[in-house]
Amino acid sequence: MTPVERAQMAMVLEVTASPKPGNVDRCHDYEGTRLEHFLASSILVRPALEKAAAGGGGLGEVFREAVGLTASHGGGNTHFGAFILLIPLLRGGDIPGAVRAVQGSTVEDALDFYQAFSLVKVRTLPGDPLDVADPRALDAIRGRGLTLLDVMEHSREHDMVAREWVNGFALTRRAADLLHASGCGKRGVVETFLRLLSREVDTFIVKEHGPAVAEEVRRRAGEILGGRGDLAAFDAECIARGINPGSTADIVIAGIYIALGEGWAWDCSGKA
Amino acid sequence: MTPVERAQMAMVLEVTASPKPGNVDRCHDYEGTRLEHFLASSILVRPALEKAAAGGGGLGEVFREAVGLTASHGGGNTHFGAFILLIPLLRGGDIPGAVRAVQGSTVEDALDFYQAFSLVKVRTLPGDPLDVADPRALDAIRGRGLTLLDVMEHSREHDMVAREWVNGFALTRRAADLLHASGCGKRGVVETFLRLLSREVDTFIVKEHGPAVAEEVRRRAGEILGGRGDLAAFDAECIARGINPGSTADIVIAGIYIALGEGWAWDCSGKA
Repeated sequence: MTPVERAQMAMVLEVTASPKPGNVDRCHDYEGTRLEHFLASSILVRPALEKAAAGGGGLGEVFREAVGLTASHGGGNTHFGAFILLIPLLRGGDIPGAVRAVQGSTVEDALDFYQAFSLVKVRTLPGDPLDVADPRALDAIRGRGLTLLDVMEHSREHDMVAREWVNGFALTRRAADLLHASGCGKRGVVETFLRLLSREVDTFIVKEHGPAVAEEVRRRAGEILGGRGDLAAFDAECIARGINPGSTADIVIAGIYIALGEGWAWDCSGKA
Repeated sequence: MTPVERAQMAMVLEVTASPKPGNVDRCHDYEGTRLEHFLASSILVRPALEKAAAGGGGLGEVFREAVGLTASHGGGNTHFGAFILLIPLLRGGDIPGAVRAVQGSTVEDALDFYQAFSLVKVRTLPGDPLDVADPRALDAIRGRGLTLLDVMEHSREHDMVAREWVNGFALTRRAADLLHASGCGKRGVVETFLRLLSREVDTFIVKEHGPAVAEEVRRRAGEILGGRGDLAAFDAECIARGINPGSTADIVIAGIYIALGEGWAWDCSGKA
């Protein structure tokens, strides 16, 4: 499997693993965003991932291309956060390489990154001077000479995906370790997802529902792991309430990418 | 979408459409062959599909490569029949081009095709002098100077996928027309699948369960379309009995490939 195929497989394996509380998975769609959108995105993003792996173009430019290739359907933002992680991982080859890649990011990368947001709707923080939905943010980036790494540093507190750029991809590493510990295949992905969710408040839930709901989800994921709660019922409740731990899913994708390169078996057959 | 992406999307859209009686779909795995295997095959086969589209290598060689790329997991034969259709369609661009491509097939293509079978287990006809599992078949092909088209002609009666090579891809064309008539997205795929199944006995079922069972499935698919039968219950029964209309699925994949190129909307959003 090439690194790009590993990235594509990571996207496919994450979205099809089930039950995962609140997310699109094999048995659950949201009204506008369905399983097929995630699978299409995994296929259609390939040229941008190839470019990331081959070292062509800046990180921001590749990101904008990835979003452009996958915004051609009606499913909205499917793998936005995953691309933020996969692109430097592909550029660098592994986590130390990704850390070097993000440290080399430029102001141009930041401007390209912001331009990508005009292609899709994403959840933003109102009042943020670097709000991606605010056209004045581009002037602020230019004026202050902010690199894409600076932008991620700015967002670290309220976005666990951005935080990966500034903390050495710590949760990505932890997700890969959890996969190795949880075992092969779909069951390993689901257990990894729950373990991450039980330890780290999902910042996507915080943005959509506030910190109390995010903390509740964290606590209940831990209860399920401890045998005090039913996963399928929790999944159904999250979906009914529109609670979607989307940032945890992004981190799991990055973790699968790393774990596949370290021999984690997606297929459990002993062959793959 | 490039032709190769259309082929990959066709594989993904077919396998995730549900409920489809008896096949692996979004909500059903077989014990050894699961949804992930079909999705992995759709991603990992890409280099062979690119080669088919670019005109490099013979049809048999590309087929052997496609099988090699997708036999690396434990899910067995996932898209064998689909590759038999997609490779000439990609080589020729459309159905008339595919007809020209298969007419130009050679003895070397036939030998490569047979060698691909050593990579996976497939269902064969006992006593057939061209049985793919019989090493003497290679001698027979060489001795009689049979092209891959001749081999398909030999199999036309008992294999509806092989028959496509010698009848101008008639069912592929019909599947594409049915998609246009059935409407966008997953619902269109399911209806197309049932309509094909109600008209043509699935030869994969014939090989596995005999003609009476295949005819029963054909009749009951028609009853469901006529409102006299429940699709979900029929699906559950087929899965319990191990009845898997796999050749119809291959034809539907080829039909989706064609229909996507003609503007059929996989996404129903009006965007894709």
